[in-house]
Amino acid sequence: MSEPVIVEVGLGERAYDILIGPGLLARAGTELSRRLPGTRAAVVTDQNVAAAHLETLKAGLEKGGIQPAIITLPAGEKTKSFAHLEEVVDGVLAAKLERGDVVIALGGGVIGDLTGFAAGIVRRGMNFVQIPTSLLAQVDSSVGGKTGINSPRGKNLVGVFHQPKLVLADTEVLDTLPIREFRAGYAELAKYGLIDRPDFFAWLEGNWTKVFVGGAERAEAIAEACRAKADVVARDEFETGDRALLNLGHTFGHALEGATQYDGARLVHGEGVAIGMALAHRFSARLNLASPDDAARVEAHLHAVGLPWRMSDIPGELPDAEALLGFITQDKKVSRGALTFILTRGIGQAFIAKDVPASEVLSFLKENHPGQPK
Amino acid sequence: MSEPVIVEVGLGERAYDILIGPGLLARAGTELSRRLPGTRAAVVTDQNVAAAHLETLKAGLEKGGIQPAIITLPAGEKTKSFAHLEEVVDGVLAAKLERGDVVIALGGGVIGDLTGFAAGIVRRGMNFVQIPTSLLAQVDSSVGGKTGINSPRGKNLVGVFHQPKLVLADTEVLDTLPIREFRAGYAELAKYGLIDRPDFFAWLEGNWTKVFVGGAERAEAIAEACRAKADVVARDEFETGDRALLNLGHTFGHALEGATQYDGARLVHGEGVAIGMALAHRFSARLNLASPDDAARVEAHLHAVGLPWRMSDIPGELPDAEALLGFITQDKKVSRGALTFILTRGIGQAFIAKDVPASEVLSFLKENHPGQPK
Ligand SMILES: NC(=O)c1ccc[n+]([C@@H]2O[C@H](COP(=O)([O-])OP(=O)(O)OC[C@H]3O[C@@H](n4cnc5c(N)ncnc54)[C@H](O)[C@@H]3O)[C@@H](O)[C@H]2O)c1
Ligand SMILES: NC(=O)c1ccc[n+]([C@@H]2O[C@H](COP(=O)([O-])OP(=O)(O)OC[C@H]3O[C@@H](n4cnc5c(N)ncnc54)[C@H](O)[C@@H]3O)[C@@H](O)[C@H]2O)c1
Ligand SMILES: [Zn+2]
Ligand SMILES: [Zn+2]
Repeated sequence: MSEPVIVEVGLGERAYDILIGPGLLARAGTELSRRLPGTRAAVVTDQNVAAAHLETLKAGLEKGGIQPAIITLPAGEKTKSFAHLEEVVDGVLAAKLERGDVVIALGGGVIGDLTGFAAGIVRRGMNFVQIPTSLLAQVDSSVGGKTGINSPRGKNLVGVFHQPKLVLADTEVLDTLPIREFRAGYAELAKYGLIDRPDFFAWLEGNWTKVFVGGAERAEAIAEACRAKADVVARDEFETGDRALLNLGHTFGHALEGATQYDGARLVHGEGVAIGMALAHRFSARLNLASPDDAARVEAHLHAVGLPWRMSDIPGELPDAEALLGFITQDKKVSRGALTFILTRGIGQAFIAKDVPASEVLSFLKENHPGQPK
Repeated sequence: MSEPVIVEVGLGERAYDILIGPGLLARAGTELSRRLPGTRAAVVTDQNVAAAHLETLKAGLEKGGIQPAIITLPAGEKTKSFAHLEEVVDGVLAAKLERGDVVIALGGGVIGDLTGFAAGIVRRGMNFVQIPTSLLAQVDSSVGGKTGINSPRGKNLVGVFHQPKLVLADTEVLDTLPIREFRAGYAELAKYGLIDRPDFFAWLEGNWTKVFVGGAERAEAIAEACRAKADVVARDEFETGDRALLNLGHTFGHALEGATQYDGARLVHGEGVAIGMALAHRFSARLNLASPDDAARVEAHLHAVGLPWRMSDIPGELPDAEALLGFITQDKKVSRGALTFILTRGIGQAFIAKDVPASEVLSFLKENHPGQPK
């Protein structure tokens, strides 16, 4: 078996490794007991992931002498709620785990965010290990320590920063991921190229089919994404500055998710981000910050991999441009009335723009809205 | 008006001031807007405290240009629950406060613990200010950043470390506190003398009546307690070592609270701590670690101020010694089966004892149990 790629997240006392490669579920017990000898564990997962991968993980943990308590939740974004948080907290306490024991998230971003939050609050912080099983979770949500749940008043409004002790990104588990979810995760992967790694974006343009197929290119792409995210997180653990760059595509994306009532049948998060990234480049071109050629290049690549890239790619009707702006101004990244956007000067040259005039955003949304005259 | 005493909690980036003195509610707006200019705020309180002090605080905040949202909860330990946590979180979000705005706890330890937890998780951490109104909260719970709620599986099992930006301990608000609650808080105040400040304990033996009456001695005693707690917290913010000293009296105390089903009519927390401290000294004497004279001195002082100090002071029947031991071994301070106790070599000489044999504890409990032959 090939050795995993290791990416270190350099956070001083809270530093940890991300292991990336095939067969890591089967090695989980060995990796864990090496780092946290004698630990006991609980595994939190969802029904889809449990069906596909729980037995492999249990066998892997067994090799390290770990027989975990298992907490299985329904799949889907609705699971990121207070009710399920309480359920996980209670499950961990019922297993009589102590502060030095470990809570393991086996699943996509939903399970990772919820479980990390629970691990962050049981006994005021337990050891936490991420075993991300979606591409999105491997390249994004499992790295960096942001955890949380949704509130009826908005997504991800409640949570803590709680860094894992270890991330095991098993690249083989992605083979059971629905292709639409794989593509959605790919949007976040490509995002790192667009933020500040133009060579990575160019590499993806040439090699994306191999990433989809699996093998060494998939592991390498995931590792590069983790390196990119780890860099940003190490610079700004608590999102007081630079880390906001990771929101490229997310302001428009969140507005579209809100406008489609977070209905995954119409739009999943990564798809919203794909459209959002295309819009961010197009908007930057309209503001004469970037070349329209760059926007076209982004659009072409997203289209090639089968991702939606414009509002008209979303099935069903969208609310009008004014309503979309309303979703943007409610966004929590808005600071005291001024609109903050991640804009770009070209591929790999994203930056944080504060004070973007709402009127410009509105005109842009009107021009690009599928249901209104262009 | 006399100037408040200021105690600094030296936590580097997270350092903050505790202001102690009369009239601080009326000055809250000035103190807050000096430190967090332009902030908006929500005040979380309970019905008892709201009736006695909310109008004064609102007027005080108004002077700093702050018109807070108000969230009023029922009084009592049951309020430290997931349901009320969700209620506070929702209230803060409904007030559309941003990450830089402030959540204020006006109340005793219950309101402080719950509100601090909510402030720690809304938007992954908002500014937090403590305005403790019980003596226990002024000398203990409002300082140090431990926040949390109870679980059906045990007290304070869920929470975060979230330091306040400021603590305003208004010594006048204690005049409306029921005397029994004042006494309970006094037990925690005396605790600091017993841990490592023998001179403070001796001072309290001579001056406790003035602390009860109010005035400069009350403020000085509270300030000394805050200094003691701030010292420990600065050495060990996340309770990985020394901070456990603050649990003096709490292992026995929690067992007695559990054994009386947390029924405040029989035993409130500080009363449990009073009995627990007396027992910790008596147990240390029995183990030949300390002189029986010291145990007698502690018992005499607790008795003088009107606090319970032995198990027979608790109204109603207690479970037998074995059952009490069961409450102790379930305690979260138990690490992998070994019993950890805070014991003492004399007044002001407490220390952390790991591996205390359960058999010794059991014999001691049997000897001191009111319902069993001595
Ligand atoms: N914490 C962060 O920094 C961060 C960053 C980005 C996104 N997120 C969050 O992540 C969530 C989205 O994550 P997601 O896209 O992984 O969603 P998800 O967890 O809902 O997973 C998507 C779907 O794929 C299924 N699945 C996952 N792995 C599988 C596998 N190997 N085989 C078969 N099915 C599998 C899941 O059961 C689910 O139905 C959102 O809630 C978002 O807010 C968090
Ligand atoms: N976070 C920590 O480090 C820490 C430390 C010690 C205790 N605690 C917690 O603190 C809680 C106990 O605190 P508490 O004793 O303040 O309990 P509390 O908050 O329930 O207050 C006791 C009673 O006094 C009332 N009250 C408070 N201030 C008043 C005033 N000025 N006038 C009239 N009535 C007033 C309250 O309404 C309540 O009925 C427990 O939940 C305990 O776990 C936390
Ligand atoms: Zn995203
Ligand atoms: Zn206490």
